[in-house]
Amino acid sequence: MQRKVLIIDCADASGLITKITGVCFANGLNIIKNSEFVDNAQGRFFMRTELEGERFSPSLANDIQAILPERSRIRLVDSGKKRIVIMVTKEAHCLGDILIKSYSGALDIEIAAVIGNHQVLQPLVDKFDIPFYYVSHQDLNRSEHESKILEIIAQHAPDYIVLAKFMRVLTPEFVSQYPSQIINIHHSFLPAFVGASPYKQAWERGVKIIGATAHFVTDSLDEGPIIKQDVIPVDHSYSAEDLARCGRDVEKSVLSKALQLVINEDVIVYGNKTVVF
Amino acid sequence: MQRKVLIIDCADASGLITKITGVCFANGLNIIKNSEFVDNAQGRFFMRTELEGERFSPSLANDIQAILPERSRIRLVDSGKKRIVIMVTKEAHCLGDILIKSYSGALDIEIAAVIGNHQVLQPLVDKFDIPFYYVSHQDLNRSEHESKILEIIAQHAPDYIVLAKFMRVLTPEFVSQYPSQIINIHHSFLPAFVGASPYKQAWERGVKIIGATAHFVTDSLDEGPIIKQDVIPVDHSYSAEDLARCGRDVEKSVLSKALQLVINEDVIVYGNKTVVF
Amino acid sequence: MQRKVLIIDCADASGLITKITGVCFANGLNIIKNSEFVDNAQGRFFMRTELEGERFSPSLANDIQAILPERSRIRLVDSGKKRIVIMVTKEAHCLGDILIKSYSGALDIEIAAVIGNHQVLQPLVDKFDIPFYYVSHQDLNRSEHESKILEIIAQHAPDYIVLAKFMRVLTPEFVSQYPSQIINIHHSFLPAFVGASPYKQAWERGVKIIGATAHFVTDSLDEGPIIKQDVIPVDHSYSAEDLARCGRDVEKSVLSKALQLVINEDVIVYGNKTVVF
Amino acid sequence: MQRKVLIIDCADASGLITKITGVCFANGLNIIKNSEFVDNAQGRFFMRTELEGERFSPSLANDIQAILPERSRIRLVDSGKKRIVIMVTKEAHCLGDILIKSYSGALDIEIAAVIGNHQVLQPLVDKFDIPFYYVSHQDLNRSEHESKILEIIAQHAPDYIVLAKFMRVLTPEFVSQYPSQIINIHHSFLPAFVGASPYKQAWERGVKIIGATAHFVTDSLDEGPIIKQDVIPVDHSYSAEDLARCGRDVEKSVLSKALQLVINEDVIVYGNKTVVF
Repeated sequence: MQRKVLIIDCADASGLITKITGVCFANGLNIIKNSEFVDNAQGRFFMRTELEGERFSPSLANDIQAILPERSRIRLVDSGKKRIVIMVTKEAHCLGDILIKSYSGALDIEIAAVIGNHQVLQPLVDKFDIPFYYVSHQDLNRSEHESKILEIIAQHAPDYIVLAKFMRVLTPEFVSQYPSQIINIHHSFLPAFVGASPYKQAWERGVKIIGATAHFVTDSLDEGPIIKQDVIPVDHSYSAEDLARCGRDVEKSVLSKALQLVINEDVIVYGNKTVVF
Repeated sequence: MQRKVLIIDCADASGLITKITGVCFANGLNIIKNSEFVDNAQGRFFMRTELEGERFSPSLANDIQAILPERSRIRLVDSGKKRIVIMVTKEAHCLGDILIKSYSGALDIEIAAVIGNHQVLQPLVDKFDIPFYYVSHQDLNRSEHESKILEIIAQHAPDYIVLAKFMRVLTPEFVSQYPSQIINIHHSFLPAFVGASPYKQAWERGVKIIGATAHFVTDSLDEGPIIKQDVIPVDHSYSAEDLARCGRDVEKSVLSKALQLVINEDVIVYGNKTVVF
Repeated sequence: MQRKVLIIDCADASGLITKITGVCFANGLNIIKNSEFVDNAQGRFFMRTELEGERFSPSLANDIQAILPERSRIRLVDSGKKRIVIMVTKEAHCLGDILIKSYSGALDIEIAAVIGNHQVLQPLVDKFDIPFYYVSHQDLNRSEHESKILEIIAQHAPDYIVLAKFMRVLTPEFVSQYPSQIINIHHSFLPAFVGASPYKQAWERGVKIIGATAHFVTDSLDEGPIIKQDVIPVDHSYSAEDLARCGRDVEKSVLSKALQLVINEDVIVYGNKTVVF
Repeated sequence: MQRKVLIIDCADASGLITKITGVCFANGLNIIKNSEFVDNAQGRFFMRTELEGERFSPSLANDIQAILPERSRIRLVDSGKKRIVIMVTKEAHCLGDILIKSYSGALDIEIAAVIGNHQVLQPLVDKFDIPFYYVSHQDLNRSEHESKILEIIAQHAPDYIVLAKFMRVLTPEFVSQYPSQIINIHHSFLPAFVGASPYKQAWERGVKIIGATAHFVTDSLDEGPIIKQDVIPVDHSYSAEDLARCGRDVEKSVLSKALQLVINEDVIVYGNKTVVF
């Protein structure tokens, strides 16, 4: 038995569920799990269906496309292990969490490579027999630096790229090559404290809760579609450094959860938002 | 346009979604919101569908029943205000929260009556021009007491009965008259601290979190299907009384949320559990 | 036996705890509960002490002042019921929660008066036999409107003023009369979504968590010292109206908790932050 | 400058804070942070004080003991890195999290050794150049097995022993050698679901929240003093396996947080409870 995930995103219309599940049924496929959402404000229909069958007709996606409204988006992807490339700078917590989760099977991923603009995390990556590429930004302009990185990424053909505390802003040219495929962790509860030093900003403002936000990367810094957010309570006794230290636990937890959702094909991007089934 | 909620609970089978939504589509009904769940361990299919249409055929439920496996359970209920009867003893917090939420329209309910085995909450209920029935259990055996209460409830024909800190155990005879219609709030995170004085038990055990549980009432005390649970962190500095005081906020919040889910027809009971869409 | 709370806020120095508790001890007072905090970044010492004794010397505050560094702030306040005035516009949820909590004794307050710039909440307040003052802002400039309100407040001499969804901005003149005494609930997780329509902003941004913030009111809108914050998870299926509806539960809960902290004298304001013991 | 933590646990009496801080002050020590708690129900006083000074008199603890009530417990411990031994069976998540946190400096510990009754985690431990001892329980009675483990532990003289999903029950003889030094993670929100297969129990009960509990190990299985608990929401769609998978994140997070508290000397055990400053 094979398993695939069907993702549909189209204009809302009458009878969509009947028609779509009808095609699946006619193809001898069993629906393992089904989720729909209609955004009434925008008249948009979203559906995620886990299908199981002995055989998937090569024309299945086309057959479904045929009964959908015009300009529908449809994806039919295999369940199972996804390839990712991780980009890092100096901090170990998010990377370390993904390494352990991949090692123990908690995340069904293959880490094809880790790319760092500093070398400090190489020893950690080496322990897990994963290629580490040190690509310093020293003496390179942004475009040259990104070209080198893009070349390495291209070699590894990842399904998704994870910025696990990669502390440099990516150019629109970079981002445009991997639309809705680059996941970033921002160390604040966006949109609070955009920009640099969010923990210092949080300390100065005297907030009683801090958080982290995992989002897809778009051209606008800290403005991409949010996948997952979480928070922890803090109090007056936390220095800015304490906030940063405690925040790391939320960062790694939120990033791992977002990655889990994304590789599970639970996330549909539309406009600047996500539907997360 | 009319709105109804269709609730289906049946043995799992191929093509159920296609067939069910097909009948709705053929009846000219629009699906506003649709949720399904398959319990693979038990081979059971659950579906909740919000339907909208100019006219609902009187045979709709039967038409759907006809295409379902045998022994399916199907309900087709009107959206909109539900009638409830509230039973209380002496504590005001859960009752007060429901009164305010009903008054302000936050809960779409009509409180038909409040029944108390003590009189202390009558002045609060009177403020809201809702009939309060004082039915003391003094000098009555359990059966006599419950008969009086059942008589009052029957007059008001509620959709649901809410035990808002009603501190007496109901007999199986009482419960059997309102299966899956009586909602209770238990002042612990069940199944921890079943029975009496859960906050005292929690204090003695030195737990770092306390909670509350809203559940349907069945014959087994504190054992009915759980609808909603929530918790709050506590610490060593809380006395048993502090735990009780802080716990009241969770109790009222959990009970109100459970009631919201139930009147919204989001909850399906099966066996001793719930599916909450 | 009498109880008082001693609040100290001064430059940090060696031996402060020994000296302060020494004066209390010499006065025959028992320390029921004691909390200290040193902000090392600013070299500032904060202390809150619950004292019990048969008799409090009238010179106690002065005796303590004498052993503290210059420009220390010291308060010695009675434990027990606080007087509050509540200001509202049209929404019942925060007001209703405080009314019920006051009625049931969950909040140890006396609600001296409720002032509304609309009349819609008067019937609710009347139920609880609390004076409601309708002060419309129609045909009045801001200063005239506030003068009328200030006059009513002055009559009732409250310890604290609670803005329970009062939807007008107060002028610096108003605020300056009640420094660190006016508590507001803002319907977002500040500093995210400052300004108008935070739930609409949150919906447009596609956040996965929404929150509420209780803070003291200062001249800068939405910028005052934060007392308490809390959040709830949301998802793509929430409309802006759903966010607002669910947000109301957080708003009322955060405001009540902040009020509890404030009347308990657990909160010290310094700069634009709070120490919350 | 040196730093030490002073931990006091004694019968409550008048003037304790003044006297204790007085001795510290007289010794030229600065109080960096101070916390007290009085359990009024039991008349017991608890204090934790972080002290800083150029030199700590060797008689300091005795000097303080002299002014305390009889049978007081007093500890004066160095701040800084603690030695731990970890015991495991087959699951990687808790161990992995501690390894990464130790590697990155997030936990200020030295992992002296890891002991496993299965060999499966050896490769992970080897990556971090930490000695792994495989001590199978095959063909050994409980006492023989524990003797071998105790011998290894003794060699490494740890401050604390962490049971990171060690799936065997320790005997009272073992536990008595390390009182209040053995930390266990239990995969439920104790006291709910004591004993075996808590996730299966949780699934059968249909709970809406699951949790984990870190506690000191005592003679009574699952009954030791609780250090930290946390929970996550779940729903009907989770199988028992899903509960176990999601629960692992809470387990590792709770265990790491408990370990952080313990090595920071924030935890005082008294009776079967903890004070956690």
